[in-house]
Amino acid sequence: MNASKILLLTMGDACGIGPEITVAAWAAEVGAGPLCVVGDVAVMRRAVRVLGLTLPVAQLSSLDDLPGVPPYCLPVWQPDDLPDRLIDAPVGRISAAAGAAAAACITAAVRAIQAGQGSGLVTAPIHKEALHAAGVTFPGHTELLQALAGHPPVRMMLANDELRTVLVTIHCSLRQAIEQINTANVLETIRISHHSLQAMGMGSPRIAVAGLNPHAGEGGLFGDEELLHIAPAIAAARSEGIDASGPFAPDTVFMRARHTAAHPGEFDVVVAMTHDHGLIPVKYLGVAQGVNVTLGLPFVRTSPDHGTAFDIAGQGTADAASMRAAIRMARKLI
Amino acid sequence: MNASKILLLTMGDACGIGPEITVAAWAAEVGAGPLCVVGDVAVMRRAVRVLGLTLPVAQLSSLDDLPGVPPYCLPVWQPDDLPDRLIDAPVGRISAAAGAAAAACITAAVRAIQAGQGSGLVTAPIHKEALHAAGVTFPGHTELLQALAGHPPVRMMLANDELRTVLVTIHCSLRQAIEQINTANVLETIRISHHSLQAMGMGSPRIAVAGLNPHAGEGGLFGDEELLHIAPAIAAARSEGIDASGPFAPDTVFMRARHTAAHPGEFDVVVAMTHDHGLIPVKYLGVAQGVNVTLGLPFVRTSPDHGTAFDIAGQGTADAASMRAAIRMARKLI
Repeated sequence: MNASKILLLTMGDACGIGPEITVAAWAAEVGAGPLCVVGDVAVMRRAVRVLGLTLPVAQLSSLDDLPGVPPYCLPVWQPDDLPDRLIDAPVGRISAAAGAAAAACITAAVRAIQAGQGSGLVTAPIHKEALHAAGVTFPGHTELLQALAGHPPVRMMLANDELRTVLVTIHCSLRQAIEQINTANVLETIRISHHSLQAMGMGSPRIAVAGLNPHAGEGGLFGDEELLHIAPAIAAARSEGIDASGPFAPDTVFMRARHTAAHPGEFDVVVAMTHDHGLIPVKYLGVAQGVNVTLGLPFVRTSPDHGTAFDIAGQGTADAASMRAAIRMARKLI
Repeated sequence: MNASKILLLTMGDACGIGPEITVAAWAAEVGAGPLCVVGDVAVMRRAVRVLGLTLPVAQLSSLDDLPGVPPYCLPVWQPDDLPDRLIDAPVGRISAAAGAAAAACITAAVRAIQAGQGSGLVTAPIHKEALHAAGVTFPGHTELLQALAGHPPVRMMLANDELRTVLVTIHCSLRQAIEQINTANVLETIRISHHSLQAMGMGSPRIAVAGLNPHAGEGGLFGDEELLHIAPAIAAARSEGIDASGPFAPDTVFMRARHTAAHPGEFDVVVAMTHDHGLIPVKYLGVAQGVNVTLGLPFVRTSPDHGTAFDIAGQGTADAASMRAAIRMARKLI
């Protein structure tokens, strides 16, 4: 088995829908290539039961054992440092044990990929407050992965069948996001978008850069970030041969980039200044097909575009479509 | 003819697509009730020609003459104070004359409605820089109409077949928008939304209030406007019997409110903190059906959800669908 083609699936928060969508997505997608779950064996067995399946679970002591697992078994590699009796953490509730386990699985999966035991990571949802309760100081996957990879500049891309958007700022207040917008940060985002989309096979990706302010500042009447920071970053990117344009009014650029059979998109990706400018349009038509891709890491990482959904966890009713789409997207990238 | 059922259509910026979409929308929608254009007669005659029509134009010296206009004529009331030779202003360009004329038509139409000569206003697009070139200090229709009506508290609602959103802040920088978010402003927006949707026939409209920050502030981790201003405004509205809820994460609340046959919306309207949080989802599927409704004025006012489109003005190719939708929406409200 070619380790560079193995995708590792972290189970996410054990008290959310992560384990059950991981099982469902594994079952639906494993036919196209090797997938191994990184998680707690007892929690994954419960997830199998919740789904009404009779799938046997194979506990791996090492990822090296993956090739020996029969195809009708769910392979689960359980890292050594998971909390004891994680299965007792109450489903649908915030739990420090689940937060600690989620972080441990992600860390173990990244270390395995760094050791050549896999090349791609698909992460089921974690809960920020559970991480916080466990003393994990990262607000989300992206920041944790960045730290594990030695702090390369990374950016979050959200993609569905119609639209790709890369975010300049993510998990901070809107006031702080505005403070983080400068020429270097926007230019870095454009460069990462360009190189990542090239790595996905696009020759010269068409990059639209959205403004920050209404009407992209209306020539300075409604804010000057476009004039001071965003336009200079676009000009610098163009001087490097990157097909970047803008800044465009935030309220119409996503509509223009939206790609459907009836409406060919004008751009391959939109660089958005804030978390919600970018995520509102990606999520508007439903989160079932949305995938989160971390750009700039030395390995492939995707995840579904939704959270832990504590309100329906443990019922076997969660939709695994986004987790499946995340696996398919990761396959395209490895 | 019942003046309370007359809709006045202002032609908008004479150098943009306003005149031609006004003619096209008039022709398509006049069968359902009286419509009178407020504009420059020569400009409207040109718009008729641009569309390849042979429609005669009837110049009214007063709105009182509307009932005598034959049904096959386009009625145009030209206010006295329009600039001379407006027809010479170059199509597709910013023009002070066109800005002045646009403002004069809006002003005349509002005064006519205030005098009982009509009860509803549908405004074709104007251009902010043209207004500015003409020395008009209002950044847009909403602010001008508010001033003409004696400065009642008003809010902008954007609506299409799937989604309604009302904006707490509009035409200012994002920094200034954040400064404008306080309990009184949010509560006023909720109240105006509630009373306006009740006036449209909803018994107890379900109002979702979006947060400002990513994840609606994540309990204070990503900003405190939700805790300090938005949640208290929702609580105050609920104590008045208004069905308001939130604050919800901006990136998913619009998806939840989206109403289609296959996906019944959870809410009747979303109160959005910023211009682009609200407009990105309304425009995402295309501006053809979007309508802008000014809530809080003592009369009905709607407009299409797009601009002057200088790049295609004068070609007869502009899509009048949003202007038509604005007329139909205004009819429901008068």
